[in-house]
Amino acid sequence: MSVVTTVAILGGTGPQGKGLALRLAQAGVHIVLGSRDASKAQQTAIELTEQLNSLGVNAQITGADMVTATETADDFVILSVPYAGHDETLKALAPTLAGKTLVDIVVPLAPGNPKAVEMPLEGSVTEAAQALLGDDIPVVGALHNVSAITLNDLSRPINCDILVCGNDLAAKKRVIQLCQTMGTQAYNAGLAESARCIEALTPILIRLNISKDVPFSHAGVRICPPEQAH
Amino acid sequence: MSVVTTVAILGGTGPQGKGLALRLAQAGVHIVLGSRDASKAQQTAIELTEQLNSLGVNAQITGADMVTATETADDFVILSVPYAGHDETLKALAPTLAGKTLVDIVVPLAPGNPKAVEMPLEGSVTEAAQALLGDDIPVVGALHNVSAITLNDLSRPINCDILVCGNDLAAKKRVIQLCQTMGTQAYNAGLAESARCIEALTPILIRLNISKDVPFSHAGVRICPPEQAH
Repeated sequence: MSVVTTVAILGGTGPQGKGLALRLAQAGVHIVLGSRDASKAQQTAIELTEQLNSLGVNAQITGADMVTATETADDFVILSVPYAGHDETLKALAPTLAGKTLVDIVVPLAPGNPKAVEMPLEGSVTEAAQALLGDDIPVVGALHNVSAITLNDLSRPINCDILVCGNDLAAKKRVIQLCQTMGTQAYNAGLAESARCIEALTPILIRLNISKDVPFSHAGVRICPPEQAH
Repeated sequence: MSVVTTVAILGGTGPQGKGLALRLAQAGVHIVLGSRDASKAQQTAIELTEQLNSLGVNAQITGADMVTATETADDFVILSVPYAGHDETLKALAPTLAGKTLVDIVVPLAPGNPKAVEMPLEGSVTEAAQALLGDDIPVVGALHNVSAITLNDLSRPINCDILVCGNDLAAKKRVIQLCQTMGTQAYNAGLAESARCIEALTPILIRLNISKDVPFSHAGVRICPPEQAH
């Protein structure tokens, strides 16, 4: 991003939202956390700012209610609420989202079973969001597969590539650029229907993280070039 | 595999089948290629054997019709036919598959568009195969994401982890072990329904391979541990 932009993170007081706020603020992006409880968002903003200041990062993070946070965003509104509140949140915000780009990172984990998804009838959460908001508000699916633990551990680079999907190519390219500010690779993974795959990758990673057969947790997924010939 | 086993590869004269035959035979597995045209399978078996012999590998690869190849397999029957012939092939072979493990590697690419899938009503090809064969014949989905070009280029290690799914845990573990003989990591990616994700990853990789924005083709996908802290 050549010009500093303000990004809203809705559900910004949860682990995924906080981790994204830290990573993006560290990269110089202005962040406004949105929460149903504005004072909680403001308190979280103070804590994250202090955390970054202690690392010598001059971050700008503020907090607000969901509508104000959405209004404050220059372009990107990242939706990071639990799946149970996804549709309701979007319905309430739809008028405010006009002129913005919705970055949907929500994974529809099965209730009580983080090793499975229960996809909405539309095929994926990204597609459901696009159907709900209509074609004038671009929805981009991204950032589904990065562990919250990884995002919050600023001592480590992000061990996960970002698969970005959606039906609006220009919006996707902007989101890819945003993801790359965090030092990650981000790829155009196709139309919104690719979210059926990308969202469902998350419970597969969670399964591996829990498994005793895998010698690490907080797994990421990466696109790999061919190996060198021997 | 402590004891040498014979694996059938149905559709073994196509690029994916030939590449798998080369990799597994190189690892010491006996291979029987199955094709509707037995003489074509036999001819391909001779060519692949010569290719491996020229590399100093003492391979055992034979060819047969689909039924004979299936009968010859000790346990694993790898199904590597085009999606259009998937169900028909399985229906014809169902009686012969009793007592074997079907390893389904078929990806339901959309006709005329390798950057998209058209999933069967059952959710995925793996689930469709399991429904078609009934619960007594375990179906394991695997090897969907490895490029045929990569498999056939024996000068390079395989740049792709294998995500293995299915409803029979013991069968999955055997297939994971088989995949590992090729020098790849293979992971238990959950129940058969995970194939909805895993099969759909292939067109995303194909899209990246075609894209001018990605500096390589023949991309693979890998599960990555956390990065070292700096």
